[in-house]
Amino acid sequence: MAPLDGITILDLTHVLAGPFASHTLQDLGARVIKVERPGVGDDTRAFPPFVDGISAYFATLNAGKQSIALDLKADADRITFEALLARADVLIENYRPGAMHRLGYGWKVVHARHPRLVYASVSGFGQTGPDAMKPAYDMVVQARGGVMSITGEAGGPPVRVGASIGDIVAGMFLAQGILAALYEREKTGQGAMVDVAMLDSQLAIQEHSVAITSATGVPPGRTGARHPTITPFSTYRAADGFVVIAAGNDAIFARLCEALGLDMATDPRFATNAARCENHMLLKRLLEAVTLGETVSHWISVLEAAGLPTARVQDMAEVLQDPQILARNMVVPVAPQPGGPGFTAPGNPIKMSSLPELAERGPVPALDGDRDRILTWLGKA
Amino acid sequence: MAPLDGITILDLTHVLAGPFASHTLQDLGARVIKVERPGVGDDTRAFPPFVDGISAYFATLNAGKQSIALDLKADADRITFEALLARADVLIENYRPGAMHRLGYGWKVVHARHPRLVYASVSGFGQTGPDAMKPAYDMVVQARGGVMSITGEAGGPPVRVGASIGDIVAGMFLAQGILAALYEREKTGQGAMVDVAMLDSQLAIQEHSVAITSATGVPPGRTGARHPTITPFSTYRAADGFVVIAAGNDAIFARLCEALGLDMATDPRFATNAARCENHMLLKRLLEAVTLGETVSHWISVLEAAGLPTARVQDMAEVLQDPQILARNMVVPVAPQPGGPGFTAPGNPIKMSSLPELAERGPVPALDGDRDRILTWLGKA
Repeated sequence: MAPLDGITILDLTHVLAGPFASHTLQDLGARVIKVERPGVGDDTRAFPPFVDGISAYFATLNAGKQSIALDLKADADRITFEALLARADVLIENYRPGAMHRLGYGWKVVHARHPRLVYASVSGFGQTGPDAMKPAYDMVVQARGGVMSITGEAGGPPVRVGASIGDIVAGMFLAQGILAALYEREKTGQGAMVDVAMLDSQLAIQEHSVAITSATGVPPGRTGARHPTITPFSTYRAADGFVVIAAGNDAIFARLCEALGLDMATDPRFATNAARCENHMLLKRLLEAVTLGETVSHWISVLEAAGLPTARVQDMAEVLQDPQILARNMVVPVAPQPGGPGFTAPGNPIKMSSLPELAERGPVPALDGDRDRILTWLGKA
Repeated sequence: MAPLDGITILDLTHVLAGPFASHTLQDLGARVIKVERPGVGDDTRAFPPFVDGISAYFATLNAGKQSIALDLKADADRITFEALLARADVLIENYRPGAMHRLGYGWKVVHARHPRLVYASVSGFGQTGPDAMKPAYDMVVQARGGVMSITGEAGGPPVRVGASIGDIVAGMFLAQGILAALYEREKTGQGAMVDVAMLDSQLAIQEHSVAITSATGVPPGRTGARHPTITPFSTYRAADGFVVIAAGNDAIFARLCEALGLDMATDPRFATNAARCENHMLLKRLLEAVTLGETVSHWISVLEAAGLPTARVQDMAEVLQDPQILARNMVVPVAPQPGGPGFTAPGNPIKMSSLPELAERGPVPALDGDRDRILTWLGKA
């Protein structure tokens, strides 16, 4: 048993935000039926890299889902789609606003016919507002939503967040809305419409930059690896790389000074976080004068022995072999085809007492590969 | 009415991941009772900047919550806490693993007494694994989880993501687990334990970097503003700043070339995404040779007229005045005290047909400021 056992999600989305939302709900126990365009399918089927001809990118987000190809403008396929709508608990779509309405599947029409269905839309700018119809990508909302303005070196150009948080965070808020709507349906018997915008979502994850801008009128800029309002809270150069040093309060800073053999915890230039932020360049020089003398591993041992937070900057190959990551079952094998060789993908980060751990991620669906199985389930085979 | 109407969350957490989770659930209709340490309260009450002596940072995450100060080692306060446990639907905690158990409030004990309670823990490394007991901060998991290794200029040092995604993404997964557990409780009558780690969460949001590393064995590096596997998908220099140009497929690239007056859509060096990725530096030079000649506003007009995705890199002051952001009610006033002057904070990014839009965020709770109201509710006043 799993929390979403028995829930069927009809997923019309492609690329990233929508598929990430249904992927999360699948990890919580839902069955996901991926409705793809005949002949082409999800664009990410063509995204590199490939393993045995299968996109690892597509597999990461879609392993274990079922695929059926339907042309929502063709009569026969519309009949199948409408039968699926009648059986599904959740519909997820990421068409341009208005497109579902023109297909005859707008929220009001669908809700009138299937009042228990949860109807979830994810889009670049939302279903409303002057820019609702404009196209968006991750890059567009990372730039317009302000995250790029605070990511990058001080004095350098804005930098894109390496993870596609423009899409992924929107997919996460969408999943939350869907879960809330499923809960509510248990109380009211009614499905709800959920509308999540990638741009809105970028603003919603910025706590300090909004607070600073709203309270002072001055937007924060870029600070490289450094937190803008906590010092030290950055990476520092060691002999062979970078080590994280982070002290969220004065007591931790005092323990840090002791661990590094620096007699400056009570120096008025560094005694408070406000003073440390003021003198952050000087503090960086003093810390690196020490840390450059030994390796990252050395400093991690020293700081961990003192009970202080620290880490190395790991690349993804190191992350995928990190003992803690592995102990948490966060790297699981994927079967590209039933019985195929497989590779790995992230595990489920939501650990629950009522949810068995994944032993592997399911097979990667071929385009339209589950048609017969789905039609049988609909009683139409 | 709202989806989580009637749900009471007992929130023992401070700083960011936990408060962000309860903040999200509050936006969905839950009542949040913030249990703080007597005398000090949430560390973020002392985080700058301040408006009328109130931390804008604290307010952003905690407006509208209720506060009671309890010492979980003092008998009288434990009685109050246990009465709260008996009435709450959800408990959220972010102590070091084992600490709740030592207080007598571990999952097993609490679940035996209150089988319907959802028990949610968020921590740096999770409740299990060799590093479960180590301290963590946002900075630590951004570094160790690999996001920093793919964020920053090519050839430059790793850069921290300006938004605190180490904490916030974990808070979002925690909220999802809680919502799934609330849904499941409607079916089974039983609460579940949810265990989310900040480190696990960093891995879970990386789709392309895990796919690339797993499929090729070679971890991706830093690429500045550029997407590693889609070209063009970056910011480009205009006369007065940066403009986003993004083309996810060949048809969009052809329209882009036409809009910019560049005759190269069929040039074999740029005709496919693979070729464009191969020749990304050359393509950047050719694009910027055009874009540098006019302003960002000019190029946004040109690209939007052609129906192409684009944006400027906005700072947070610009974001907070963006007409689309405002039309979506994503900037809402906060009342620091009942009747006080107020400032603004992000709105709720989860728009739902069953959820009224926020007119404002509630008052910022004073430490222990809701004690009487909460005790009255418990029938103890």
